[in-house]
Amino acid sequence: MSNTKALPLLEPAQGEAAAPCCPPLTERPFTAEEAETAARMFKALGDPVRLRLFSAVASHEGGEACVCDISDVGVSQPTVSHHLKKLKEAGLLTSERRGTWVYYRVEPSVLAAMGKLLTTTSAVA
Amino acid sequence: MSNTKALPLLEPAQGEAAAPCCPPLTERPFTAEEAETAARMFKALGDPVRLRLFSAVASHEGGEACVCDISDVGVSQPTVSHHLKKLKEAGLLTSERRGTWVYYRVEPSVLAAMGKLLTTTSAVA
Repeated sequence: MSNTKALPLLEPAQGEAAAPCCPPLTERPFTAEEAETAARMFKALGDPVRLRLFSAVASHEGGEACVCDISDVGVSQPTVSHHLKKLKEAGLLTSERRGTWVYYRVEPSVLAAMGKLLTTTSAVA
Repeated sequence: MSNTKALPLLEPAQGEAAAPCCPPLTERPFTAEEAETAARMFKALGDPVRLRLFSAVASHEGGEACVCDISDVGVSQPTVSHHLKKLKEAGLLTSERRGTWVYYRVEPSVLAAMGKLLTTTSAVA
């Protein structure tokens, strides 16, 4: 079974990281395209179970984890796999198969880009 | 023109602002409660139209806007109102009625809290 990457994202080729995107939300109104890209990332974290799984991977030893490492969020292993796949599709995780298991790892550049979106350039006029 | 714009950030939440929450996602696995709170905020930004509206408010002159200020995202005024209300319920915006219009303002402490969630304590091995 080869590793198909379904990448519906528009992004410069090169691996599978989602294109980090967009200026801080407070800087100027987003264009439709920017909103599309950024909303996909936020949406991926907009589910409590998915968010727990994401933080489980992100905080796991070595910065990566397989389904086999994550079992204490109270959902079945197929459900865990499903959510991890969604996170990958959103560009928040990358994956690598090693032997039996697929290992997931946080994509730090995407996290950083999302963090930047939320920067308040505040202290307004 | 008396533009009241003296007060700095941080208004003790009136009504429904969500409590800022949670350690960085990379620090440790989220508890169910933390995930619930944080996912609500992410979900609110997980819709492209809502995200555009949010950035329209966030980047508007003076840091606030009413529905009357936001009309160029291609959705009807009731839809704009609906989305702004959702953002308010998620604690991302606060609102204040002045005369005919309700003015929305970004809740900077919540944005900052979300930004902190996404901090990568990198040091990834």
